[in-house]
Amino acid sequence: MTSRDGYQWTPESGLTQGVPSLGVISPPTNIRDTDKDGPWDVIVIGGGYCGLTATRDLTVAGFKTLLLEARDRIGGRSWSSNIDGYPYEMGGTWVHWHQSHVWREITRYKMHNALSPSFNFSRGVNHFQLRTNPTSSTYMTHEAEDELLRSALHKFTNVDGANGRTVLPFPHDMFHVPEFRKYDEMSYAERIEQIKDELSLNERSSLEAFILLCSGGRMENSSFGEFLHWWAMSGYTYQGCMDCLISYKFTEGQSAFARRFWEEAVGTGRLGYVFECPVRSVVDDEGGKGVRVTARDGREFVAKRVVCTIPLNVLSTIHFSPALATEKVSAMQAGHVNMCTKVHAEVDNKDMRSWTGISYPFNKLCYAIGDGTTPAGNTHLVCFGTDANHIQPDEDVRETLKAVGELAPGAFRVKRLVFHNWVKDEFAKGAWFFSRPGMVSGCLDGLRERHGGVVFANSDWALGWRSFIDGAIEEGTRAARVVLEELGTKREEVKARL
Amino acid sequence: MTSRDGYQWTPESGLTQGVPSLGVISPPTNIRDTDKDGPWDVIVIGGGYCGLTATRDLTVAGFKTLLLEARDRIGGRSWSSNIDGYPYEMGGTWVHWHQSHVWREITRYKMHNALSPSFNFSRGVNHFQLRTNPTSSTYMTHEAEDELLRSALHKFTNVDGANGRTVLPFPHDMFHVPEFRKYDEMSYAERIEQIKDELSLNERSSLEAFILLCSGGRMENSSFGEFLHWWAMSGYTYQGCMDCLISYKFTEGQSAFARRFWEEAVGTGRLGYVFECPVRSVVDDEGGKGVRVTARDGREFVAKRVVCTIPLNVLSTIHFSPALATEKVSAMQAGHVNMCTKVHAEVDNKDMRSWTGISYPFNKLCYAIGDGTTPAGNTHLVCFGTDANHIQPDEDVRETLKAVGELAPGAFRVKRLVFHNWVKDEFAKGAWFFSRPGMVSGCLDGLRERHGGVVFANSDWALGWRSFIDGAIEEGTRAARVVLEELGTKREEVKARL
Repeated sequence: MTSRDGYQWTPESGLTQGVPSLGVISPPTNIRDTDKDGPWDVIVIGGGYCGLTATRDLTVAGFKTLLLEARDRIGGRSWSSNIDGYPYEMGGTWVHWHQSHVWREITRYKMHNALSPSFNFSRGVNHFQLRTNPTSSTYMTHEAEDELLRSALHKFTNVDGANGRTVLPFPHDMFHVPEFRKYDEMSYAERIEQIKDELSLNERSSLEAFILLCSGGRMENSSFGEFLHWWAMSGYTYQGCMDCLISYKFTEGQSAFARRFWEEAVGTGRLGYVFECPVRSVVDDEGGKGVRVTARDGREFVAKRVVCTIPLNVLSTIHFSPALATEKVSAMQAGHVNMCTKVHAEVDNKDMRSWTGISYPFNKLCYAIGDGTTPAGNTHLVCFGTDANHIQPDEDVRETLKAVGELAPGAFRVKRLVFHNWVKDEFAKGAWFFSRPGMVSGCLDGLRERHGGVVFANSDWALGWRSFIDGAIEEGTRAARVVLEELGTKREEVKARL
Repeated sequence: MTSRDGYQWTPESGLTQGVPSLGVISPPTNIRDTDKDGPWDVIVIGGGYCGLTATRDLTVAGFKTLLLEARDRIGGRSWSSNIDGYPYEMGGTWVHWHQSHVWREITRYKMHNALSPSFNFSRGVNHFQLRTNPTSSTYMTHEAEDELLRSALHKFTNVDGANGRTVLPFPHDMFHVPEFRKYDEMSYAERIEQIKDELSLNERSSLEAFILLCSGGRMENSSFGEFLHWWAMSGYTYQGCMDCLISYKFTEGQSAFARRFWEEAVGTGRLGYVFECPVRSVVDDEGGKGVRVTARDGREFVAKRVVCTIPLNVLSTIHFSPALATEKVSAMQAGHVNMCTKVHAEVDNKDMRSWTGISYPFNKLCYAIGDGTTPAGNTHLVCFGTDANHIQPDEDVRETLKAVGELAPGAFRVKRLVFHNWVKDEFAKGAWFFSRPGMVSGCLDGLRERHGGVVFANSDWALGWRSFIDGAIEEGTRAARVVLEELGTKREEVKARL
């Protein structure tokens, strides 16, 4: 099936919108008439991992659940497109056994042996190419690359003589040490200013490229504390970051994983769903009678509870009644800063499989790695750009091709580009969450607050792997449990049976 | 409530059996008559974390479930006793956010801020005391301790120039690299023999004490591959091991965590339970009519499916019909090797809070740390012995007190001992699972196999954090899902409602 989302470019066909995905759901609905099928126990708005998890948990627990999704597919900001027998990850990709919620699901769905490594240094060029200006490259071994980044990241994170362990001992309880607030309020730029004299030019370029790869933002608007949070979640080491952030992916692509949640929920017989159904308003002012969700096309759905998984940067497009609390509104209006551009390039040099590169700050794609070999024998490179030097990859393909080429001039010709422009996606308005300075300390609690019959859940305000697939599952799990506790576990049925 | 399990000794009262625990369930049953309450959808045998997880998942999913437990309490090999306002962990203790299944439950039950660090080096003696003979001690800083163990463990694990990453890239898929089989078949002693010339005396003593702490066995009967598996799960580093294995515990004790599962299951109204009810036989030869479980006291219970969570070393005490498969029987007969002795000592020296020690090989307790400060202002030391120099702590308290004293001669007087003798416990017959050489490659698949209507689940044969609380939850989750898929998700009810 082909989604309307995503773009592909080849020299032969040029730029085309829409790529195939296992995540597309067809037909887009299994309900005919809202009067006949409702009222629902729960409506879940959004079919990303958070919504899928909540939907799965609620249907398994016996609740009649309606899933409303704006797109034609499941997965939200994580989905894959299988093109010519090769899976391209359009958004969230990597997982690791140190990510508790996603790994719990991976073992539960018996996919622990369905993962592949991104890095493969067993053949080909086997080097790291650092470009700090458009006229030259420095080549290093991957061991030297690791040492460069390890050294730079240790300087960056070492605010307490213990690489953050003292100021952030419990990353899920971020302000356990109240002093941590000051790091949350500090920007990347401010932290770099504190350590700039300790950094070599190569360390500084690599460090900035790496931390901007994490935030997708700019040095001035990315929170240093949020990076420290990723760092603590990863075990306070560079190797932990590499392992958790960019090492292991699903052999068949993310959408194969998302479908497991979907199929389990469908299999209960308790799931109603409507895809291609963006929501206009969520009204909860009927005195306990339920929450009414109205779609853009005017259809109305009513349920006892709503789980709203709409991302932070999109929340302000929905009308809520009664009005949301101030903390939520101010966070929604500020938005998170991640304007990452992720571009896949299939290139005609098989030896690039073992290549990694940083081109910063001059290039519009700053970090890339050899991520696979396509069935045609070409190398698949995955390339990242950030808001610090932003590109809209669909607007001028020549400029996108130039940015890919600048990563390793003369090393390859591009046979294919595949990407999703998350910044222009009206249902995402950016990539994974990354905090502005002070945003987490100021707004996290407020974002996690329920609002009458509406439970808000999204990786954007998870406690652990916030921004990750793991955080989405954490939040979907939380939301389902809130509803489960409130609506009971179908006590009346039980009593009838016991 | 006081459990029959566990021992306490004080100078005033001497040795007494049975200590208080939040995990005791009273009254011990909520069913009156098997004819009236049965038949059950599922019987879960065993109320440790594996059984509790399966029970919780199954009752939430709508199944009428009966939990049978031999003891008077939940928690199995993980439970805590709160004595004079201080929790002593009688078995499994430590958790970390890199342990996926247990951490998923910790966040789900909102206990992410209910943890405390074991180590506290902020005051007191603040040193590591290494004793390789009974006549002298070497004192080191904790930094030097870390460097000693890091160096030794890197030599021990570095079979591939990559500290195990190459031979064990996917620890949940242990024989992904078939060559790994040879490490699984290798004993600790054989591996030490390979590297003995690279190890200093202090490295070798510390290393042996540390790896025996992990296995609870002897150098000759502990599998090197199983240690590499722990190492890989921990991120292939010494620091990762310390973080995951011995750093964070529940402020209120394990039993406070176990109760969350219990209360959720009870709250569904679908749970029947009988404590103090050891099982005698499990019979599944009635041609699809169900599985019959008979208790030692002759009571019979029938269910469509049985989830059997009895530990490996106890399985052979149960009569199964039809007979179990050869692979299971041979693993049951061999048993795992962990004969760990864990002894808590409350000592009258508050400065020991920041002490750690290894006394090996001469002493019957080889590894200990300052683990807390009791309300009386004393230091709580947690001390471990292994089968390599075994002690039965309840048999001769003077000998136990001597072994505690030998850890740091002259440094303290013992005010209290608290322990559970897992080796003599008829429902455990050892502590956490640790593999003999070749046992995992030979028996793991067989141990995980179902047997007709009986699903076998236990941390002893988990794929990930095997032997850990995490592995127990992994297995309980798996078992519940198997049953859920087979018995359906109560389709008939659903259709009636939709």
